[in-house]
Amino acid sequence: MSAIPLNATHDPARRSWLALANGADADFPIQNLPLGMFSLPAEGEGSPPRPGVAIGDQVVDLRGLDAAGLLTGEAARAVRAVAPTDPGLNALMALGNGPASALRAQLSELLREGGASGLRERAATLLHAQSAVRMHLPCRIGDYTDFLTSYPHTERHGRFKGLADPVSPVFHSLPVAYHGRASSIRVSGTPVRRPNGQWKAADGSVQFGAVEAMDFELELAALVGAGTTLGQPVPLDRAGDHIFGYVLLNDWSAKSVQWWEQMLGPFLGKSFMSSISPWIVTAEALAPFASRAPARRPGTPPLLPYLHSAGDREHGGLDIAMEAWLSTQALRESGAGPVRLAATHLSNLAWTFGQMFTHHCSNGCDLNPGDLMGSGTVSGEADEQRACLTEIASAGREPLRLPNGEERRWLHDGDEVILRARAAAAGRVSIGFGPCAGRVLPALPYPLPRS
Amino acid sequence: MSAIPLNATHDPARRSWLALANGADADFPIQNLPLGMFSLPAEGEGSPPRPGVAIGDQVVDLRGLDAAGLLTGEAARAVRAVAPTDPGLNALMALGNGPASALRAQLSELLREGGASGLRERAATLLHAQSAVRMHLPCRIGDYTDFLTSYPHTERHGRFKGLADPVSPVFHSLPVAYHGRASSIRVSGTPVRRPNGQWKAADGSVQFGAVEAMDFELELAALVGAGTTLGQPVPLDRAGDHIFGYVLLNDWSAKSVQWWEQMLGPFLGKSFMSSISPWIVTAEALAPFASRAPARRPGTPPLLPYLHSAGDREHGGLDIAMEAWLSTQALRESGAGPVRLAATHLSNLAWTFGQMFTHHCSNGCDLNPGDLMGSGTVSGEADEQRACLTEIASAGREPLRLPNGEERRWLHDGDEVILRARAAAAGRVSIGFGPCAGRVLPALPYPLPRS
Repeated sequence: MSAIPLNATHDPARRSWLALANGADADFPIQNLPLGMFSLPAEGEGSPPRPGVAIGDQVVDLRGLDAAGLLTGEAARAVRAVAPTDPGLNALMALGNGPASALRAQLSELLREGGASGLRERAATLLHAQSAVRMHLPCRIGDYTDFLTSYPHTERHGRFKGLADPVSPVFHSLPVAYHGRASSIRVSGTPVRRPNGQWKAADGSVQFGAVEAMDFELELAALVGAGTTLGQPVPLDRAGDHIFGYVLLNDWSAKSVQWWEQMLGPFLGKSFMSSISPWIVTAEALAPFASRAPARRPGTPPLLPYLHSAGDREHGGLDIAMEAWLSTQALRESGAGPVRLAATHLSNLAWTFGQMFTHHCSNGCDLNPGDLMGSGTVSGEADEQRACLTEIASAGREPLRLPNGEERRWLHDGDEVILRARAAAAGRVSIGFGPCAGRVLPALPYPLPRS
Repeated sequence: MSAIPLNATHDPARRSWLALANGADADFPIQNLPLGMFSLPAEGEGSPPRPGVAIGDQVVDLRGLDAAGLLTGEAARAVRAVAPTDPGLNALMALGNGPASALRAQLSELLREGGASGLRERAATLLHAQSAVRMHLPCRIGDYTDFLTSYPHTERHGRFKGLADPVSPVFHSLPVAYHGRASSIRVSGTPVRRPNGQWKAADGSVQFGAVEAMDFELELAALVGAGTTLGQPVPLDRAGDHIFGYVLLNDWSAKSVQWWEQMLGPFLGKSFMSSISPWIVTAEALAPFASRAPARRPGTPPLLPYLHSAGDREHGGLDIAMEAWLSTQALRESGAGPVRLAATHLSNLAWTFGQMFTHHCSNGCDLNPGDLMGSGTVSGEADEQRACLTEIASAGREPLRLPNGEERRWLHDGDEVILRARAAAAGRVSIGFGPCAGRVLPALPYPLPRS
């Protein structure tokens, strides 16, 4: 991927007149400005989702901003692309990164200390407290692809399954992926129902019922902006033209189901639900955090030409730290906060998002605005970098002991998993993604009684 | 699944005043009335897709029919559900099978000899020759799932790959499936570009380039009508409430890519394009062809309760014969017609569409109107029932010899594959699906030159 040039919106000295946006640990300082879709419950159930931008603990109403005459040119075009009946930002994303960049520049001017006037004066109507809005999926996700790009995650899973060669040679030759289920992706905060499913028990019998082996997986995911054309691959150096931004992804998994059904890859073991965070952190906001692509592991074959470019090697990575936290029913009842389960980093991935994108369309497959590409579980070598419970508890063999004495082989009903991520680099204002959270609901009885 | 009751629209004595609808080998007699989306090229490139029904060699313009006051009640509601800006029939399908059934009944009355007047008198404006219209995808396909339900197909592929146990035990315990790529599904007639891809050569080296091992796969696919709710499974006896109809599916495959990338199932080996036929043959039109579900193979375990119902055993199958034909450049130049590659039958599948649907949502995964469920390649035991070239030519080892002396290990550029299917039963007027055709275009050079 080519580097995204830095500009005034990235200036670490820039501060907002919204004091809460300037805290050192704020997820949404003026250097971030992520996009999402929100509605106002105060307006009633039928309140339609509308485009917004997060700043500090507030949301800017973009349509209101435009109606007030505070946006011009490409920035106004970006906001107007989203029709009032559109449930998501797809039409804005389809314009590519240029109009979104113009919008970012004008928003930064309107929100910065000493910047353009207009928004601050109308803050009472154009800003809403994040605590008072309801967040929706940021876009309609036509297709969802999930990759498998962490060597430690792959290696540990291969060992749990008893594979002689835990990591298949293909892992080093291309970014392995499968098509995921798009219909069951939900926004952070949506509870996840424990699924029923089939699995093979230790005694060899095949069982069906509520799945015990339920897990989370900590991932980052890219959202496609400008789409591609069927039959037309995109070279690696142009992949960045099509990646609009990133969200957190919890790829909830029913591991026993996944391991039994696996003949053509993950299906019902994953498709009961996946969660994403509501705010799209744009590729431009992440430009200061571009880093070298991770080094290739010793002994792995050289990259095929279509998966190699000097630009991708130099700045195809992202300096993003990621965490998973667990809150249990017992912890909540005792007034204790969540327990950190994992602290990892995107540099643990063997492939860049540019490589994932370029590989994805190398056969001519078309990617559309709003399509989602998950990184796969972002596990690293260190114990604290194990980014799913399957790794932490060795596939159920070595239960995790929580500080309050509880044990977890798998997720229990009532458990809430909270994912977080934060981009940071020396001399830069770090930016966050906001939480991606979901609580486990008990399974429904099934088969259902005859109706 | 419960049986769909027969009614006057199924009456084998019913004939249309459109003579061409009454031929014994017509795909679209008055007993069929499949739904699709068509546009009129004569109106120019911007001619929008609109809902239509096939009868003989004609298409009925459903919106025109409604505008002429010839539809009432639920039938009119079904047509009006599709907004003029809608590219597909999703909103009609979302209403479930009731309104579509009312539409079918009124259309049958308007089209039958001795039936209601109105359409025949306005035929000049309300009917269009199929040869003069352009067909589109019948609906927006949100998610595409492809199953693997033919034992002979699975067993032959397992042997080609040298597996000790060619058919995994899980095949008998649940309908195996993977998520497919929805974005690259195209309507019959769209040419398919030979993909570039990665594969492992016989000498063990990993190659990238235009894929030689290109294949077709002959499948039937169900389209979801009324959707389901996330977290809410649907019992087998109610699966029929959600299956709107069926189309032919060609699951074009790059087998060398598929076999190398396979760690999480098929990905780029399939996602470059899939083709479907444009006319949705409704579940109601197929009611006279309901048949017993195929017998379970000896030695396979009993069905788990959620995959068993007496109704599904009794009439969960469909009496549909399916064929694949090949036309090559040389055949066309010599004036010769296509060569039949396969003649098979849906009874070769080990699982019913009801079971596929019920399994799919057994974990709570939601299925939406317009979602597509492919059967997998419909191969049988007999040689002529091998429903892909991989089986016919033993994975490239025993080339197929065509009558004109040409040989095929895999598809060549210029080859056109035409799929056909026909439902037939004693004492019934048989109905067809129309062709699902696509011609192979040469691969584009890739990696592309730097731009």
